[in-house]
Amino acid sequence: MFFHRKELMFPVKVETPNAQFARMLLEQFGGATGELTAALQYWVQSFHVQQPGIRDMLQDIAFEEFSHLEMVGKLIEQHTAKVDEEAAYDSPLFKIRGIGPHLVDSEGQAWCAAYVNEGANVVRDLRANIAAEAGARQTYECLVKAAPDEGSKKALTFLLTREISHTHMFMKALDSLGKLTDPLFGTVAPDETVNLYFNMSKGDGTDWRGPWNKEPDFNYIAQPKPEGGMMEKIVNPDDEKAKPRGVTEQGSR
Amino acid sequence: MFFHRKELMFPVKVETPNAQFARMLLEQFGGATGELTAALQYWVQSFHVQQPGIRDMLQDIAFEEFSHLEMVGKLIEQHTAKVDEEAAYDSPLFKIRGIGPHLVDSEGQAWCAAYVNEGANVVRDLRANIAAEAGARQTYECLVKAAPDEGSKKALTFLLTREISHTHMFMKALDSLGKLTDPLFGTVAPDETVNLYFNMSKGDGTDWRGPWNKEPDFNYIAQPKPEGGMMEKIVNPDDEKAKPRGVTEQGSR
Amino acid sequence: MFFHRKELMFPVKVETPNAQFARMLLEQFGGATGELTAALQYWVQSFHVQQPGIRDMLQDIAFEEFSHLEMVGKLIEQHTAKVDEEAAYDSPLFKIRGIGPHLVDSEGQAWCAAYVNEGANVVRDLRANIAAEAGARQTYECLVKAAPDEGSKKALTFLLTREISHTHMFMKALDSLGKLTDPLFGTVAPDETVNLYFNMSKGDGTDWRGPWNKEPDFNYIAQPKPEGGMMEKIVNPDDEKAKPRGVTEQGSR
Amino acid sequence: MFFHRKELMFPVKVETPNAQFARMLLEQFGGATGELTAALQYWVQSFHVQQPGIRDMLQDIAFEEFSHLEMVGKLIEQHTAKVDEEAAYDSPLFKIRGIGPHLVDSEGQAWCAAYVNEGANVVRDLRANIAAEAGARQTYECLVKAAPDEGSKKALTFLLTREISHTHMFMKALDSLGKLTDPLFGTVAPDETVNLYFNMSKGDGTDWRGPWNKEPDFNYIAQPKPEGGMMEKIVNPDDEKAKPRGVTEQGSR
Amino acid sequence: MFFHRKELMFPVKVETPNAQFARMLLEQFGGATGELTAALQYWVQSFHVQQPGIRDMLQDIAFEEFSHLEMVGKLIEQHTAKVDEEAAYDSPLFKIRGIGPHLVDSEGQAWCAAYVNEGANVVRDLRANIAAEAGARQTYECLVKAAPDEGSKKALTFLLTREISHTHMFMKALDSLGKLTDPLFGTVAPDETVNLYFNMSKGDGTDWRGPWNKEPDFNYIAQPKPEGGMMEKIVNPDDEKAKPRGVTEQGSR
Amino acid sequence: MFFHRKELMFPVKVETPNAQFARMLLEQFGGATGELTAALQYWVQSFHVQQPGIRDMLQDIAFEEFSHLEMVGKLIEQHTAKVDEEAAYDSPLFKIRGIGPHLVDSEGQAWCAAYVNEGANVVRDLRANIAAEAGARQTYECLVKAAPDEGSKKALTFLLTREISHTHMFMKALDSLGKLTDPLFGTVAPDETVNLYFNMSKGDGTDWRGPWNKEPDFNYIAQPKPEGGMMEKIVNPDDEKAKPRGVTEQGSR
Repeated sequence: MFFHRKELMFPVKVETPNAQFARMLLEQFGGATGELTAALQYWVQSFHVQQPGIRDMLQDIAFEEFSHLEMVGKLIEQHTAKVDEEAAYDSPLFKIRGIGPHLVDSEGQAWCAAYVNEGANVVRDLRANIAAEAGARQTYECLVKAAPDEGSKKALTFLLTREISHTHMFMKALDSLGKLTDPLFGTVAPDETVNLYFNMSKGDGTDWRGPWNKEPDFNYIAQPKPEGGMMEKIVNPDDEKAKPRGVTEQGSR
Repeated sequence: MFFHRKELMFPVKVETPNAQFARMLLEQFGGATGELTAALQYWVQSFHVQQPGIRDMLQDIAFEEFSHLEMVGKLIEQHTAKVDEEAAYDSPLFKIRGIGPHLVDSEGQAWCAAYVNEGANVVRDLRANIAAEAGARQTYECLVKAAPDEGSKKALTFLLTREISHTHMFMKALDSLGKLTDPLFGTVAPDETVNLYFNMSKGDGTDWRGPWNKEPDFNYIAQPKPEGGMMEKIVNPDDEKAKPRGVTEQGSR
Repeated sequence: MFFHRKELMFPVKVETPNAQFARMLLEQFGGATGELTAALQYWVQSFHVQQPGIRDMLQDIAFEEFSHLEMVGKLIEQHTAKVDEEAAYDSPLFKIRGIGPHLVDSEGQAWCAAYVNEGANVVRDLRANIAAEAGARQTYECLVKAAPDEGSKKALTFLLTREISHTHMFMKALDSLGKLTDPLFGTVAPDETVNLYFNMSKGDGTDWRGPWNKEPDFNYIAQPKPEGGMMEKIVNPDDEKAKPRGVTEQGSR
Repeated sequence: MFFHRKELMFPVKVETPNAQFARMLLEQFGGATGELTAALQYWVQSFHVQQPGIRDMLQDIAFEEFSHLEMVGKLIEQHTAKVDEEAAYDSPLFKIRGIGPHLVDSEGQAWCAAYVNEGANVVRDLRANIAAEAGARQTYECLVKAAPDEGSKKALTFLLTREISHTHMFMKALDSLGKLTDPLFGTVAPDETVNLYFNMSKGDGTDWRGPWNKEPDFNYIAQPKPEGGMMEKIVNPDDEKAKPRGVTEQGSR
Repeated sequence: MFFHRKELMFPVKVETPNAQFARMLLEQFGGATGELTAALQYWVQSFHVQQPGIRDMLQDIAFEEFSHLEMVGKLIEQHTAKVDEEAAYDSPLFKIRGIGPHLVDSEGQAWCAAYVNEGANVVRDLRANIAAEAGARQTYECLVKAAPDEGSKKALTFLLTREISHTHMFMKALDSLGKLTDPLFGTVAPDETVNLYFNMSKGDGTDWRGPWNKEPDFNYIAQPKPEGGMMEKIVNPDDEKAKPRGVTEQGSR
Repeated sequence: MFFHRKELMFPVKVETPNAQFARMLLEQFGGATGELTAALQYWVQSFHVQQPGIRDMLQDIAFEEFSHLEMVGKLIEQHTAKVDEEAAYDSPLFKIRGIGPHLVDSEGQAWCAAYVNEGANVVRDLRANIAAEAGARQTYECLVKAAPDEGSKKALTFLLTREISHTHMFMKALDSLGKLTDPLFGTVAPDETVNLYFNMSKGDGTDWRGPWNKEPDFNYIAQPKPEGGMMEKIVNPDDEKAKPRGVTEQGSR
């Protein structure tokens, strides 16, 4: 069951409203890397994750993210409070749809659940969460650098910090399952190609070697070739003339 | 520059076409965890990643994923080859839109770029990729278990295997940056709250402790409280009657 | 600030898992009329609504809707708990993406913020909320009728009941602003056409009269005519041959 | 059957083309609150509404909305007629996609049917329509205020006026069903919780009382508590190690 | 200005309601190839097309498509009239959202304006329209073959026929501009590569030659090579360690 | 199987980075008319097209389009290389999400597969492709005109040229099937209405005649009338009061 206190988790005190910056902030309210994505992702995961400790952690962090979403909303509310007095180019969004946050990103695209990555397996979920935190932290870094006032900067630095904290927690949880540094998980055994590295993209002097494609972990295939052969088409005789009229010969290279 | 060989990367030989299974396979052609998501994500990342070795790796893996997408397409093509002779409930999609793959998931929803997670920072990108691989592997496990014939199962096991291989490569690349097990990255320093764990979700006997919320890594806050205070609303006098007519008193709990 | 108790707001006790019904339940988890739409709509409104009493009410109801969303999630979790043992046609969603709720509707379409109706004016917001509740109640009625067990039916009847309760609250709030039965609101005065009813759609014996188009409230225009005149096109000389070659005459009716 | 007269319903005479304002106008052409949403919503409803009089009204108003959509399109056509001569920041949309209206909102997001609220019940439909009109009116108010010329202002004031007219009609129709001020409708009886108000969101001095949560209509629950109890998880033994390795104790609050 | 007659353009008389077929029909109501796409595409084009004759034609056909959309809606309305008495697997859509048409396709995905192809140039528009008609005709062919009763088949054959008629009209209009068989249009002159055919996809015995890649129209490049050279990356020194730690050598093929 | 060479198909040498132009270029990277749409459309078609020569052509052109997509990506990468030093209004997208291309259009809307037009029939596919090329060429024309430097202009002119080349190829292929100028295709015979032209949209002096509605090809119906008659509603007695209370009379025109 959800409960709410009207006080914020952390102070949000904008000094000078700036509707153009409010628009950038929308990225973390209704955008792909935003707090709504994180909150819903972790919370939805908690319904299917079987491990009680990790399920509890997912809920703890989800509710913190909801509380962060509220802070971002307050930042936007304050930065749009005087939108009618500002001439900044970005204000049309707030002039037409009103002040305060809306569920769109900094480009005005509506939030959608396609941003949420979850399902069926706790290792997959935790890896998705580490990725979500990395995206959120990255966006906060851009916002901190662009923030026009100290109050915004301080609140955003807190939010950035907490994404690192959550990353740490998810890494610890993944490590407790032995899956932070082990690529393998699940119940279907991989086949014998598991250590091959295919050099699919080539260019003079551009085929770098590094730990991700070197022995002893990987067997580097410098010149990959198709192993699957040609596939015969099953011809449907009802289709529009299978053989085009103008064709006179089969090409050769 | 892209090139194509008409032979497949790995054999795809379906024994008995099954349109219902073809529909499930769409999840990896036009779905969130599918090969198109992976191929485009890694390839788009390669435009902004600065490290030449990692950029090369992203391109190598992207082009392998495109080649996997082609294999999934061939599986669907073969599984729908006799859709007119099947009475299975799932065939309407292929009966109306034609046989072969379409850019939709197993529920018929069109693929969209909101599935792609990339931007601005190589650590963020690599974490996003490990997550993408985990989702793909999980879906392949479900498909392997549901596969109605050995040919499909073998091709899908190959595809599942390669997701593990890629995970391994991305982990090695992330480790080469020192970021596989270190939560911190980027240029903005976190504030003093970085080690706090907030117990936001409570229930009798449900507040588990584990490595993700224990000392020495974390300082567990058993009873989190709002630190942000109330926010005064900036009242707009033009708004519809700020004080509702029926209000007679302020509530008390 | 958000808080969570792990106990549910109201009991959810499914007797026999039924994945096909779980799928229908998704309509209220990740669907247009679902609890996520309601919770986010009311909560986002609370950032811009100026009246403190109504803002408080929006938050109270938003957090109840979040708690309802959790109940719907639990219904789905329980109805999918044995999906591997069921042969029902609808299980592919849960077989591929895993058990428990996902942020999609009963057709598998991802939730999107286009469902949310809010912005700029409290009267507009409250009317949007009465509409949202009507949609939610209607879907619950269909689900109650389709529910396969008494436990589901009881929980769904509670959820349906609360939508009526919220409707009542929103009506009272709108009435406190004098806008429950008065169509007019806002600061731009309507012009002299405000009482006209245009009979735009005609058919023999199908032009009904009722309170919505009768005197004294309305002036019924039985044969509406265009009053706006023709609009001269501004011709762009760079365009592809403004006058088509084959044209020889202007048509007459 | 649809018919068309090339003359407009009401005059549209833009004095000075302004591509930036054209962009704002898109909100009512291809946006959530726009005329396309209204026209399609009422028209689709007319297929399932059983009451012949209300069905006729829905069609009359739908066709008026289509005629308004045409007016908005003409406004945009005229405001973009000289886009090549304007340096305004917003013109890229029209410079790349051409002059005239497109089916996107003022932020460039494509119109989608998720904006449309309809289905199964006439009371639900009429409430949805009153909400749709409120959103449309609100957007027109913003546009009237931002309009750069008298011709635009006059046409937009007409369009705003008609939204009020339609609200009036829908209210009369809803009242004819006895549902304008009665929250209850449908065939499933509510349970005993129908009059409870839950004070879910709290803050010192912020728990307002008003007609929406006071006796005799409502029973105010100042301290809501979970009534649903804990839900036992059904553990799936195939899952990744149900008990994480690092867990040593259960937490206590 | 739009007008409506309640009689249909062509008779729609379903003999036996079939909700499963109603679902397939949604493809032409709210689907990509459906009548809404066609109607809105042609009508939106009419705002920017400069040629008065072609603009008139676009409007004539648009309004016929709207009248077809109405017929498809009536087919769906009749096929869902007894949905409560049917046990067909596809009925959940209509059982949850009500009988009659909804703005979704046969897979339940909401209609979106991304289906509409228009803008800036009459040749582009007319080519888009010929494509739209081809998609619509193809879907109608599938529906005619799947239709369970003669009444549906007859109405659908009429609708299929009219798509051919419109194709004919658009071809005549395009021909009147000299652009039915001439690939070139617009004001930017092509460069010297205009007649090259690149054999980008190869396989033993699969490089066919036909009128689309033969002399004298085309110059066939059997072995295309990159002509663009390598691109130097502009390195951002602030980025996460440009040179990964584990890299020891540059790869060679 | 896909392969990649790191050299570009054609040179891309931007002289002066311009983030505002980079944003416009996104239209051809992640936009409706862009290279991703074309590449995926032709490639997906190749799975179901039965004619080996046309299938080969579709793959050849698809892989060229992928190579063009890469060129557009490089243009964007170069135009955003100094985004931190530019003050242009459009930079927020790149400042928040990073430099280089993203899978969005020039308005920031994510690419979606709804842009792709394919399925079931080779004639339909080829017509869809001619339309796709027309849209792409049109957008390139706008971009060439807006390009701020000669290097961009040259690369864009090459890309524009190739769209014309592809149009030529698709026209030749369609002509080889006899379907470039013949509207008819498929296996369902049209009915007797195939030559009727309905004058659905009227206005004084606006009913133009041209090759698209004249004898001998067409039979012009100057005054179309509904032929389908009225449809009786099947009344559902469970519905909310079929007869509204306030209705007293049936209207007459």
